[in-house]
Amino acid sequence: MEKLTLIKVGGKIVEEEKSLNQLLVDFSNVPGYKILVHGGGRSATQLAAKLGVETQMVNGRRITDKEMLKVVTMVYGGLVNKNIVAHLQKLDINAIGLTGADMNLIRSVKRPVKEVDYGYVGDVAEVNAGLLSAFIQEGLVPVIAPLTHDKQGNLLNTNADTIAGEVAKALAAYFEVTLVYCFEKKGVLSDENNEDSVIPEINYSTFLRYVERGIIKDGMIPKLENSFQAIEAGVKEVIITQASGLCKGKGTRII
Amino acid sequence: MEKLTLIKVGGKIVEEEKSLNQLLVDFSNVPGYKILVHGGGRSATQLAAKLGVETQMVNGRRITDKEMLKVVTMVYGGLVNKNIVAHLQKLDINAIGLTGADMNLIRSVKRPVKEVDYGYVGDVAEVNAGLLSAFIQEGLVPVIAPLTHDKQGNLLNTNADTIAGEVAKALAAYFEVTLVYCFEKKGVLSDENNEDSVIPEINYSTFLRYVERGIIKDGMIPKLENSFQAIEAGVKEVIITQASGLCKGKGTRII
Repeated sequence: MEKLTLIKVGGKIVEEEKSLNQLLVDFSNVPGYKILVHGGGRSATQLAAKLGVETQMVNGRRITDKEMLKVVTMVYGGLVNKNIVAHLQKLDINAIGLTGADMNLIRSVKRPVKEVDYGYVGDVAEVNAGLLSAFIQEGLVPVIAPLTHDKQGNLLNTNADTIAGEVAKALAAYFEVTLVYCFEKKGVLSDENNEDSVIPEINYSTFLRYVERGIIKDGMIPKLENSFQAIEAGVKEVIITQASGLCKGKGTRII
Repeated sequence: MEKLTLIKVGGKIVEEEKSLNQLLVDFSNVPGYKILVHGGGRSATQLAAKLGVETQMVNGRRITDKEMLKVVTMVYGGLVNKNIVAHLQKLDINAIGLTGADMNLIRSVKRPVKEVDYGYVGDVAEVNAGLLSAFIQEGLVPVIAPLTHDKQGNLLNTNADTIAGEVAKALAAYFEVTLVYCFEKKGVLSDENNEDSVIPEINYSTFLRYVERGIIKDGMIPKLENSFQAIEAGVKEVIITQASGLCKGKGTRII
């Protein structure tokens, strides 16, 4: 099986011109087949504010009413996605921007209302990786925005980490997939006050021990649980690292 | 050669929910291979106004400074394009939304400054129809937004009529192409005050006679000149009609 690297980037990195340019140069140097999944939340919040649409977050997730759905469709599907594609084309990477609605790539289900009504937020139901895999083998480099659809005509706002994980799992039938989550730290830290205390490798039993000892906690727990699920579903490895470490084999490897 | 219908729609039709829904149902009923090219100018003007970005038109073309480029990227590439794609998916049409930057579909050149500086506006230089044609043969239905790129990292605002014409010409090497321009009238009229005076068929010599007699004038002249250029470049026929006549073989045929 041929190798494929799926890189998820979010936060400031994709939303500030300088760091985005550096990221895309690094991404263009990643060898072999590849995919980029991006976020864009800060720009969405900014545009929403300008338009007088209130941003409301619950458990780190954006409440997405009809107006906010328009905002994220414009920002994720338009502004961020198409600018990344144009930049990559300049770097001779034959990028193609996609949402989950395009070619029915990712069908999701509107999140049921329990304690919280998240609005137009989708939980991934199905990734159609066949055509995507064919595109990649044609030399195309997909750039995926965090939007899905319900096949009932609605776009749905969907967490970019989840999209990255689900697409990686679906592509594991076609490629030997490495999933890279880029975030603001160098990797999973054994000491949150020491930026250099990156744990180089974690497997499921060491993960459980770290959680027990309180070294891994909070938001890092679901991130790692998702990573182990991806591994279980056939993804070869998951790496958690800084964007600047993209091509340097640094960060924490989940195996 | 197999048949392909390329339909260009703009104006109110794609920007009001009811007329858009009807258009997409009609489009879904067009038999065989097909492509939709859309505009979105009214929504762009509305969003620009909300954001305090001034809309300036010269000769019917939008002056596109850096802020306006963001607006059209959000509206054309995001809001309008992705909503059309999601609606078509509901209708079991396997739509894929594209700008000219995606897979380097349409490279353009920033319009040189003469009397007017149009800003980030592109004149089409090259359409790469090979992959597009392969997509179509895979059963995908491209939905193209009026944005191109210069391969230097810049998106460029590009007239949707022009994109439709250029894509039709490039695809004429792969398909027997019918190009349909949907606009607000039933076709080219022989009497501008009589909505039913549609000229059923125009060839180049009848066109010249109509112009001479002042029956065809103003904005209709470049529209028809573009149509004849498309025919010369191998497009089989061009139809100018109302969106509601899409599947009814009405309107004016340019041959």
